Amino acid sequence: MKLTGKSIIGFTHGSETEKTFTAFNPQTGKAVEPKFYSATNEELNRAVESAKRARIKYGKLSGKEKAKFLRQIAENIEALGDDLIERASLETGLPNARFQGERGRTCSQLRLFADLVEEGSWVDARIDFAQPDREPIPKPDVRSMYRPIGAVAIFCASNFPLAFSVAGGDTVSALAAGCPVVVNAHIAHPGTAELVGTAISEAVKTCDLPVGVFSLLFSSDYEIGQNLVKHSDIKAVGFTGSHIGGRVLMEIAANRENPIPVYAEMGSVNPTFILPSALENDYVKIAKGLFGSFTLGVGQFCTKPGVVILPESEQLSNFADFLRELTMESEASPLLTSGIKETYEKGVEHRNENVASASGEAVTEGFEVQPTIFQTNADFFLEDKSLSEEIFGPTTLLVKSNTLAELLAVANKMEGQLTATIWGNEKDLEEYAHLIDVLETKVGRLIFNGFPTGVEVCHSMVHGGVYPATSDSRTTSVGTRAIERFARLVCYQDFPQESLPDELKDENPLEVWRMVDGEFQKN
Amino acid sequence: MKLTGKSIIGFTHGSETEKTFTAFNPQTGKAVEPKFYSATNEELNRAVESAKRARIKYGKLSGKEKAKFLRQIAENIEALGDDLIERASLETGLPNARFQGERGRTCSQLRLFADLVEEGSWVDARIDFAQPDREPIPKPDVRSMYRPIGAVAIFCASNFPLAFSVAGGDTVSALAAGCPVVVNAHIAHPGTAELVGTAISEAVKTCDLPVGVFSLLFSSDYEIGQNLVKHSDIKAVGFTGSHIGGRVLMEIAANRENPIPVYAEMGSVNPTFILPSALENDYVKIAKGLFGSFTLGVGQFCTKPGVVILPESEQLSNFADFLRELTMESEASPLLTSGIKETYEKGVEHRNENVASASGEAVTEGFEVQPTIFQTNADFFLEDKSLSEEIFGPTTLLVKSNTLAELLAVANKMEGQLTATIWGNEKDLEEYAHLIDVLETKVGRLIFNGFPTGVEVCHSMVHGGVYPATSDSRTTSVGTRAIERFARLVCYQDFPQESLPDELKDENPLEVWRMVDGEFQKN
Repeated sequence: MKLTGKSIIGFTHGSETEKTFTAFNPQTGKAVEPKFYSATNEELNRAVESAKRARIKYGKLSGKEKAKFLRQIAENIEALGDDLIERASLETGLPNARFQGERGRTCSQLRLFADLVEEGSWVDARIDFAQPDREPIPKPDVRSMYRPIGAVAIFCASNFPLAFSVAGGDTVSALAAGCPVVVNAHIAHPGTAELVGTAISEAVKTCDLPVGVFSLLFSSDYEIGQNLVKHSDIKAVGFTGSHIGGRVLMEIAANRENPIPVYAEMGSVNPTFILPSALENDYVKIAKGLFGSFTLGVGQFCTKPGVVILPESEQLSNFADFLRELTMESEASPLLTSGIKETYEKGVEHRNENVASASGEAVTEGFEVQPTIFQTNADFFLEDKSLSEEIFGPTTLLVKSNTLAELLAVANKMEGQLTATIWGNEKDLEEYAHLIDVLETKVGRLIFNGFPTGVEVCHSMVHGGVYPATSDSRTTSVGTRAIERFARLVCYQDFPQESLPDELKDENPLEVWRMVDGEFQKN
Repeated sequence: MKLTGKSIIGFTHGSETEKTFTAFNPQTGKAVEPKFYSATNEELNRAVESAKRARIKYGKLSGKEKAKFLRQIAENIEALGDDLIERASLETGLPNARFQGERGRTCSQLRLFADLVEEGSWVDARIDFAQPDREPIPKPDVRSMYRPIGAVAIFCASNFPLAFSVAGGDTVSALAAGCPVVVNAHIAHPGTAELVGTAISEAVKTCDLPVGVFSLLFSSDYEIGQNLVKHSDIKAVGFTGSHIGGRVLMEIAANRENPIPVYAEMGSVNPTFILPSALENDYVKIAKGLFGSFTLGVGQFCTKPGVVILPESEQLSNFADFLRELTMESEASPLLTSGIKETYEKGVEHRNENVASASGEAVTEGFEVQPTIFQTNADFFLEDKSLSEEIFGPTTLLVKSNTLAELLAVANKMEGQLTATIWGNEKDLEEYAHLIDVLETKVGRLIFNGFPTGVEVCHSMVHGGVYPATSDSRTTSVGTRAIERFARLVCYQDFPQESLPDELKDENPLEVWRMVDGEFQKN
């Protein structure tokens, strides 16, 4: 497919505007064709107004119809074949194999949500029957369920060009909920965005859906993204990216005349507590696993273990030495963008100056960086706030604690996180019960004897966590519950059967699970 | 029980500070004893820190233990007997009978939430079992459920001294979720607040719970309330009150270093569409019902029907004349506070000057006001934004529309509302399907052939709606789903059985409904 470089506004293309940009190949540092044209504010308005016009018709689609649409998107993405893989690889410097995997995840995600809405119970239908004879006042018939929140703005993530971008987790959960979507493409992989955007747009046509269900806007700067969040007809925002970016969008949304929810997933250092018993048992395995985890995707995952807390123990120095060896022997790889590279260099330089020991040279030529680890002590860590900040890229910080009190102090001082991990044995979980209690108040996911990278897409996944890990600790951006972010509760009082949504009709024609007079049932 | 006028901070009382205030009797306009002492910021900090210390222990309480506590609160409130009824009546000018009803609702609400947490399925437990042999990577064991969000600040409502104040819907849903609560008493009914606060505090002791589970702060101005929302250890806010007050708290919360959710229920004009067929059928019944609804509690309910849209029809003038008669014949009653009275007078005066016709004299002596109705046309209503603003008190506005297009324009122009009502027959629901579609995007509750006042406390109730009706359209402040506002999702990956919460253990010892590998089940 030939790229046009133009925004997709419903079934039309944006114009050839004056503001243009290109993608960069991180392997070569060179621009990649073609030119992309920034959307104008007029084009933005057209996209949002079209989404607004589509919202009622699209919001009333049955689960079956939405499922067909989501599956069609997955098929269309697969039909792009190697073009998509190669373009994503070209724009990110990540290997083809990575994108074969990520495409698989993206399409499974689309199909998982298709299954979810086709089955239909996600709407949490509830019925309380009338009691006309109740004293002192009659009880009305009340029925409620989730309904779509309205048009949604989605921001693509730099580090997930497929699974958290144009047809990624945020988009699919919004579309599944019944919300039209306007996507703001990431500047680093616009070609990948156009390919996937075209696949969605084609699916809208094939399924005969309203034109405004999907639009994709390109922009060389932050203006279009910010104006999207300011638009009064946008009713929710999905974002995965930096803390600064997420906070700006949160503030714009909160200060609108009509504030809206922002679901920003902004990063985390994912504290990993490795207890003595675990090192005693197999420090080699843990070191290898940790190395694999903090360098996965060149350390550019929000679930990267960025701070590793280690109580003093016999095997601690063996572990640290072995991890340092693994790190020093490893090869350099390119980071996704020059911006990420710059921030990484500054972060690593700061650590070089401020902590006890580092492994080798952290930064090499071009976009490429060499993995590196740092080591410090708990008392030092507790004093220097910068050490608990995320550095996006292949680096982690080992923090040695001398006492249980110190270890708990580190846990208590931690800000909100996506995940926290504990390595140990089952007896440790009793001994360190208070540590788990503290961590539980801060994270979305607690992991025992594992690594935080690799987020399972399933019904029980919580990829969330307390601010500043996310803007909204109540929710998850991965797994089927992500759909609830784009829905709101509506109830119908004393409505006649024919005017109720199918999910709320007496005979339960869709056979969904419902709470009827307080009891769960399916008949 | 003798009132002390002092804040309740855990198991101690606040001090006799310099800033004091009293309640007023709206019937006489005179101050009511005793003096109440504003909490100091130091007392506020003590209350919040105590709540923070309590949060882990209280958050780990079983549903059974929390249920016992909530039932004990209900018992203690009932044990206050007539003291409570009389004090509430004295401070509000509302009749004793109103508070017998409201006490009933408050205690039923406490017991409903006790049943909810004792049964336990509200936590929405989900289990996805491990698949160690899955290719290309093993699937971990992932389990999730709702956990408490942390210490919560609750603001009492002027118009519900019992059901939405110290032990009201916000407090009970936060306590049920496992969150310690710091309540900011309403200045208009501090005596009622102290009585109920003491009942809760005694229940904390009786049930041997951590001291910080409950505190109650008095304040003569907004400082303490605002500082409460600013406190970094407060993790969510419940508020029922004015738009201005709610918006201020939303902005404080959004601009904190760590932003938190605010659940503000801020009012609504509850548009009521009375279609010709309904007036044809029985205009007398509808006029009587509407009159009862807009004057209930002296028109001081957030669900008061404040704008009534009437398509031109044969019976329209008969309906309006009869409603005007009912209104003019009715007696004056006192409003809750001088502030509400002042705002009411201004609002009514503005309408007197700006709309076509009014019924009699709107305002009388003292705190007392006479119900009044206004009438205008749709084109005038569409032009004058002030006409769609809420006036708290016994008044409503009839809006005549001449065409379907005009009626839809009124619906489209409406801001977010708690409720919308349609009177008509089943055929109308088809003819006006688009009206319902539009209203559904704006409200929490749609009512057919009923009145919006009287909010059923049940599992399916949605007392919410799009901003500016509430700050967070996804939620409800009435009914059992209110508990979800004070909970966040947490998941446990590869945790051993003994370290999991009971709700997530394989054998399901609490017998809660769970989603296991995608299927709902209870065994």
